[in-house]
Amino acid sequence: MNDAPIGLDAVGERTEFDSMGYVQVPADRYWGAQTQRSLVHFSIGNDRMPKAVYRAYGIVKKAAALVNGESGRLPEWKAAAIVRAADEAIAGKLDDHFPLFVWQTGSGTQSNMNVNEVLSNRAIQLLGGQLGSQKPIGPNDDVNMGQSSNDSFPTAMHIAAITILDERLIPELERLASTIERKAKSWMDVVKVGRTHLEDATPLSVGQEWSGWAAQIRAAVDEIKHARKGLYELALGGTAVGTGLNAPTGFSVKVATKIAELTGKPFITAANKFMAQGSLDAMVRASAALRGAAVALMKIANDMRWLASGPRCGLGELKLPANEPGSSIMPGKVNPTQCEAMVMISIQVIGDDTATAFAGSQGNFELNAMRPIIINNFLHSATVLADGCEKFRTYSVDGTEIDRKRIQSYLDNNLMLVTALSPVIGYQNAAHIAEDATSRGSTLRDAALSSGHVTEDQYDKIIVPAEMIGSGVAGA
Amino acid sequence: MNDAPIGLDAVGERTEFDSMGYVQVPADRYWGAQTQRSLVHFSIGNDRMPKAVYRAYGIVKKAAALVNGESGRLPEWKAAAIVRAADEAIAGKLDDHFPLFVWQTGSGTQSNMNVNEVLSNRAIQLLGGQLGSQKPIGPNDDVNMGQSSNDSFPTAMHIAAITILDERLIPELERLASTIERKAKSWMDVVKVGRTHLEDATPLSVGQEWSGWAAQIRAAVDEIKHARKGLYELALGGTAVGTGLNAPTGFSVKVATKIAELTGKPFITAANKFMAQGSLDAMVRASAALRGAAVALMKIANDMRWLASGPRCGLGELKLPANEPGSSIMPGKVNPTQCEAMVMISIQVIGDDTATAFAGSQGNFELNAMRPIIINNFLHSATVLADGCEKFRTYSVDGTEIDRKRIQSYLDNNLMLVTALSPVIGYQNAAHIAEDATSRGSTLRDAALSSGHVTEDQYDKIIVPAEMIGSGVAGA
Amino acid sequence: MNDAPIGLDAVGERTEFDSMGYVQVPADRYWGAQTQRSLVHFSIGNDRMPKAVYRAYGIVKKAAALVNGESGRLPEWKAAAIVRAADEAIAGKLDDHFPLFVWQTGSGTQSNMNVNEVLSNRAIQLLGGQLGSQKPIGPNDDVNMGQSSNDSFPTAMHIAAITILDERLIPELERLASTIERKAKSWMDVVKVGRTHLEDATPLSVGQEWSGWAAQIRAAVDEIKHARKGLYELALGGTAVGTGLNAPTGFSVKVATKIAELTGKPFITAANKFMAQGSLDAMVRASAALRGAAVALMKIANDMRWLASGPRCGLGELKLPANEPGSSIMPGKVNPTQCEAMVMISIQVIGDDTATAFAGSQGNFELNAMRPIIINNFLHSATVLADGCEKFRTYSVDGTEIDRKRIQSYLDNNLMLVTALSPVIGYQNAAHIAEDATSRGSTLRDAALSSGHVTEDQYDKIIVPAEMIGSGVAGA
Amino acid sequence: MNDAPIGLDAVGERTEFDSMGYVQVPADRYWGAQTQRSLVHFSIGNDRMPKAVYRAYGIVKKAAALVNGESGRLPEWKAAAIVRAADEAIAGKLDDHFPLFVWQTGSGTQSNMNVNEVLSNRAIQLLGGQLGSQKPIGPNDDVNMGQSSNDSFPTAMHIAAITILDERLIPELERLASTIERKAKSWMDVVKVGRTHLEDATPLSVGQEWSGWAAQIRAAVDEIKHARKGLYELALGGTAVGTGLNAPTGFSVKVATKIAELTGKPFITAANKFMAQGSLDAMVRASAALRGAAVALMKIANDMRWLASGPRCGLGELKLPANEPGSSIMPGKVNPTQCEAMVMISIQVIGDDTATAFAGSQGNFELNAMRPIIINNFLHSATVLADGCEKFRTYSVDGTEIDRKRIQSYLDNNLMLVTALSPVIGYQNAAHIAEDATSRGSTLRDAALSSGHVTEDQYDKIIVPAEMIGSGVAGA
Repeated sequence: MNDAPIGLDAVGERTEFDSMGYVQVPADRYWGAQTQRSLVHFSIGNDRMPKAVYRAYGIVKKAAALVNGESGRLPEWKAAAIVRAADEAIAGKLDDHFPLFVWQTGSGTQSNMNVNEVLSNRAIQLLGGQLGSQKPIGPNDDVNMGQSSNDSFPTAMHIAAITILDERLIPELERLASTIERKAKSWMDVVKVGRTHLEDATPLSVGQEWSGWAAQIRAAVDEIKHARKGLYELALGGTAVGTGLNAPTGFSVKVATKIAELTGKPFITAANKFMAQGSLDAMVRASAALRGAAVALMKIANDMRWLASGPRCGLGELKLPANEPGSSIMPGKVNPTQCEAMVMISIQVIGDDTATAFAGSQGNFELNAMRPIIINNFLHSATVLADGCEKFRTYSVDGTEIDRKRIQSYLDNNLMLVTALSPVIGYQNAAHIAEDATSRGSTLRDAALSSGHVTEDQYDKIIVPAEMIGSGVAGA
Repeated sequence: MNDAPIGLDAVGERTEFDSMGYVQVPADRYWGAQTQRSLVHFSIGNDRMPKAVYRAYGIVKKAAALVNGESGRLPEWKAAAIVRAADEAIAGKLDDHFPLFVWQTGSGTQSNMNVNEVLSNRAIQLLGGQLGSQKPIGPNDDVNMGQSSNDSFPTAMHIAAITILDERLIPELERLASTIERKAKSWMDVVKVGRTHLEDATPLSVGQEWSGWAAQIRAAVDEIKHARKGLYELALGGTAVGTGLNAPTGFSVKVATKIAELTGKPFITAANKFMAQGSLDAMVRASAALRGAAVALMKIANDMRWLASGPRCGLGELKLPANEPGSSIMPGKVNPTQCEAMVMISIQVIGDDTATAFAGSQGNFELNAMRPIIINNFLHSATVLADGCEKFRTYSVDGTEIDRKRIQSYLDNNLMLVTALSPVIGYQNAAHIAEDATSRGSTLRDAALSSGHVTEDQYDKIIVPAEMIGSGVAGA
Repeated sequence: MNDAPIGLDAVGERTEFDSMGYVQVPADRYWGAQTQRSLVHFSIGNDRMPKAVYRAYGIVKKAAALVNGESGRLPEWKAAAIVRAADEAIAGKLDDHFPLFVWQTGSGTQSNMNVNEVLSNRAIQLLGGQLGSQKPIGPNDDVNMGQSSNDSFPTAMHIAAITILDERLIPELERLASTIERKAKSWMDVVKVGRTHLEDATPLSVGQEWSGWAAQIRAAVDEIKHARKGLYELALGGTAVGTGLNAPTGFSVKVATKIAELTGKPFITAANKFMAQGSLDAMVRASAALRGAAVALMKIANDMRWLASGPRCGLGELKLPANEPGSSIMPGKVNPTQCEAMVMISIQVIGDDTATAFAGSQGNFELNAMRPIIINNFLHSATVLADGCEKFRTYSVDGTEIDRKRIQSYLDNNLMLVTALSPVIGYQNAAHIAEDATSRGSTLRDAALSSGHVTEDQYDKIIVPAEMIGSGVAGA
Repeated sequence: MNDAPIGLDAVGERTEFDSMGYVQVPADRYWGAQTQRSLVHFSIGNDRMPKAVYRAYGIVKKAAALVNGESGRLPEWKAAAIVRAADEAIAGKLDDHFPLFVWQTGSGTQSNMNVNEVLSNRAIQLLGGQLGSQKPIGPNDDVNMGQSSNDSFPTAMHIAAITILDERLIPELERLASTIERKAKSWMDVVKVGRTHLEDATPLSVGQEWSGWAAQIRAAVDEIKHARKGLYELALGGTAVGTGLNAPTGFSVKVATKIAELTGKPFITAANKFMAQGSLDAMVRASAALRGAAVALMKIANDMRWLASGPRCGLGELKLPANEPGSSIMPGKVNPTQCEAMVMISIQVIGDDTATAFAGSQGNFELNAMRPIIINNFLHSATVLADGCEKFRTYSVDGTEIDRKRIQSYLDNNLMLVTALSPVIGYQNAAHIAEDATSRGSTLRDAALSSGHVTEDQYDKIIVPAEMIGSGVAGA
């Protein structure tokens, strides 16, 4: 094996072939005939198969080559060349050679062949052969040995999905939860009016309110971690229809073990390959976990922007960082833009997930041919959620402050403090006090004392907001 | 406490009151003023709050009364009367007294008050008091003691959800999986053509194909069981906004423990009441688990009806039971109606779940006021899934037979058997054989032998469908 | 024809038959063998095929009988008996005899046969024959003459859909729009703070704000009226697969004309029957129109409840009618419950529509076998929207008042009045004034005068909120 | 005005400012401080605001500058410089200077300011001024004169939406429909088995079947054209909150007229600016029209791939072009990949539309701050639909052939021809014939003659498939 640097110093076109004949490809690209056919037939929109899929595919090809090499099916020198090329794909160094679109064959075969062709030609280059000759490394016979798109593509999907969850989404969600928890702690004793149905309710502390948001995110993270379990199960070894034809006995377990070694993650072979290839149920479930995070984040971002609304004609309890002028026409306006971005991201994730669930239901027989749409939506959702959480935390949550004066003012006016009188004077009497205060526009104290149901002493002893918020976050 | 039978032997109307004044209600109903107001203001469509919610609410009220009685806050004789009335609600004996609609206040307060009013009046009846007097058992002060709709309604939601999962959905899914597994086992050696992209592919056995369907259902059940964990966490004890105001310290834990005792299920108090009341995230996740089952069932039902298509101009591998004439105009037509019902149910569950996720994102501050829509969709989905699985199993899956002759005929014609030659003669040579057979309309054997790449002996040794399906269901 | 009253005075069971054999049915019901089979095989959940479908089907059967009678294919006396029975179905008098579930065959054949059987037996009764004999009026040969479920069911769907739109939904939406317009007019000069991004913005009038809501509803109504056009096109006459087999030439046009006469609505025959039976695209589009109304109503209901939030710690510009106590624990609390119901209804309609669009995409060849789910969702959405609008208008919008004092107070504090200075002193200078007022907590006037960019006279001449709202609703 | 070519020949950074202070931007870019702030704060995922939005914004800015120039508010020389820069934006020549992400402020203000800043600096360059000085052309005071993001962004959305519909989507849908119609015509007399419920049904012609697909597309196009009407209504002139503050009276009408002139399309000013800015209902409705096309296309693509399934073990009536090898492991396999891409595109469009409808419901008060997500989804859907239709037509539909032998063979075996006997011998007798043929595996003719209900002559006269398909596409 020589040490040829990555890249093809050539201009014009090169001839490649597949079983249907010869095809001209750009001379400076490693891809072959099938990639080129797909580029022509499927240049639809701007959605390219995510690079993360190809990097994951590099792991698949490396693992297969290693197992094939170890078993003697593939000569060691061939395996070594494929492994080196695969390592380059894993490192993203071959990204420019994976140009295909999302909207292609539903099995992902064209992207698999893109990988096979690129690794084949790169290995040929490393071995001093002629590009396009498929010798000594063939895309189908060597790089794809013991594999089908039908088992390798969902394997790459799972690896790519786990990777983004572990590297980006889970850490960002956890960082956001931690930031919220830190702020919750610092405001745990700042008593404020509660709001239910958007209407004034009994008090709680700012910290308690924020603790609920953090708990939502923590629960969402737990669910995402749970969803990983289904993604650890790999289809590889099922080959064309799940039976493992053309792969040697034991291949499933060996490649899954190899992938686990290479990634340091607990991948295992799927117990039932007909499910693993005929459905994408594990991806649908993982998508639902992302949606769960979106549902939580939307509530949080909405709460934050409402609590920060104003500055003078809204609720105004929170002060978000002013990151940029908010209006092209209204001078000095500042808007809760990070919250808005998070809300839009959440809605998009719900839309992405709708497409995923629909696609997940459309499998037929031995294949669910909706893979490109599902992995694209999944990676898209995970990416915008992760990045969105990072920006939201950095540019909004972290710098949020509270307006203690405004918070206290609401608390002082809150008629729902009357609730604490209820166990003493009964719900109906308490209700009439509140109704009286509302209709007369009086303070709660005035109305309560006028009612005759409670003495001044009683009132002042019972109506102490700071003593009405219980302790901690677990309720009574 | 007397032994008054359930029911009110009265005609005309009765006067009831709440803090806003007096209201006339039907004299033969236990409900009070607030229920009546809701009936007038919210008679929207035909969607009534499911009875399962009220039966679950009976458990909530019983548990609260027991805990309140044990702590001495509520006199034992009051508690006993409430418990007896609650037991009747749990048993469904008061169902006719819970008339409210789904489209009401978003907190479910009107249904909570319906329960409070009915149990109050029923307890008053049992204690010989006057209906509508709220004495000696008041709907707010006694039946609702230590509770708010804000914590009790989601508690009832979780209990109702767990109940239908445990009693109906999980057992039906498991029965369906078992039936499919039984049939898979019996056909594990019947080799058939595989199909990917709807196109002929390498063979597998009928049993292998069916095993994939069963595995999908088993995985869906596992996910539903996982989703129960979130539902075991109860909001009760958070009262109005999560702080537990007006409930004594320790109430959360005690009522959750009591509910666990009463139901025999591992309910616990939610660790964070602000999340438990401000969000419905656990319900959103449970809904996603139902959707996961729907996605799997849709694939299965679609496969079955396609494999049974014909009888003479379709795939015709399966023969489904002929349950009824299929057409009003085409005599003797039989259709895969159970499959169609299952497909429609699956789509509806996905639609229900979309509404649930959307609603789940719309919480504000201390309350997600989208509870009625969420519990209604959840119980609806679980019900139609469970009933649908039962009918699908009983009237279609269980009686499905295979057409061995047709299956063998496809197998004999299947050009994709050529795949087994690939490791021996290379992918490209094998491809040309298949392409040749296609273009000439010849048998695979003819084309293979004509190619010169394989001898008669080789061919007959390699191309043995029964040896091409591997062993078991885990691939190579 | 005798004058037998509707109803069967019999107990126990009666024997009915279809091509598959004999079936026992309840003796007091008109239905026959196929209805009974469906009842057994498809008792799934509580979703019954809406009665509106059967009433519409009565029109279909009446029209067909009339056309068949006029053409001489069906003896006049037979036609007359069928027409009389059909009239009873149209009037809802046979509703109790249509028990089937939504989750049945995807073509609706079972409901069609239910109609055929009931009208057959009722006609037999009117003609003095023996129930279950199918003589002299057969369900297939006479009542269903020239029809298939495949063309008659979508015809009944369209009639049922048009009926609810015309009788319920459009009038209720228009009434709601009119009420909003009336109130908008009365508050057209009440100047208030505008809000964009939830943040204070330049002023507008209360009436202008409300005019936008009314315009949204008017546009939604226009779209629903547009969607009716697709629904006026009827499949009847396509029979089994769209070719019209077994119906005489000209039948399509004649029955559509007859239906138009009977209903007084511009129904016509569909130009392409293969589309009319193979797709449900017109229903999908009509469903989208309902969704459009839901999207608008959700915005309106949300605006109203936010503007009414408080009473003391929210925006508090609007005062909604207090229809019922809002909380079981917080005395005197009042919530925007009609708004909440409307929001939930809107979300449900969006969920229903998701199911409809999904189902609409799942047709195969000559039939979209997703009819029951689609008509059920459509009628459900239209019903809850119509009823919801009625309640929302009656119990909330109509009685809504404004808090002029609060509105004025916000207006006085609104820093975004600075916008009017921008054309005079430039955006940047204006921005610095607003920023200065915010940071110092001063009034806008103080900050503006301190800036030196504007004189007292200028300020007082330019900053006149009432002159900043333009005129009318069409902008500058 | 000089003739400076487009581009900035500078390296490093340049100082720009806005009301919040100074910001460094890349020296070779025209954008200013606010664009730079957004780039930093909102680098989320890979979703950039589509270039089509900026090109449409160029039209908005040009129209505004022309109207402002004509009215004398803006000096003619300033207007001319802005118009020239706007023309460059319209032509796409400034695309590289519009880098912002979709996930930004919900009003699109940052993209509006990006346009304002770029046109300002480009105009300054043309006028020989200093970049970043905002003189003599200010981004807010001059380029944005009489506008707000709140009215200009939705105006740009509508222009961009109309543009893609007119230039790409409608023509591609029409081309696809024409191709299908051409093929339908050529096969109008090829009789084939019909299929309903996937089961054999009465015959129709291949051309009739295809005519239904074309009719679906034509109807979808009609709906898209209808949806344009809402998009022709422009918000421009409403400025900040719909009142038109800071724009002169008549501005709305004048700019809409100007935009109509510039584009040659019937744009008009929206009658109600509070709706036009507070909602995105017209976009939601336009999105629904795209969804309608997707629903139709999914049915068509599914039909095509099922009819082409095989080649030997499927339905095999159609032969789709073989564009590329279909499998990495199964040699010679060919798959219906264009159909699969179209199905995935359709599902994605439905998912995009779900996000759009959700976002459309989330407006508050004077602004729906969900604009970026909605225009991004809309343009995405329209793009992939248009490109997808082009590829589907070019590489699949156009080259599709029929297998007449297979089609005839199905027709000969089709038991549902029995339907034609029904009017003669009655439905029940006909049913028994079909059931007999099925159970005995006999031909229909054998079973019919054996039944004694029909003579040989009768049979041969009645059972003539070619005479069972009626005439044309409108049914009987």
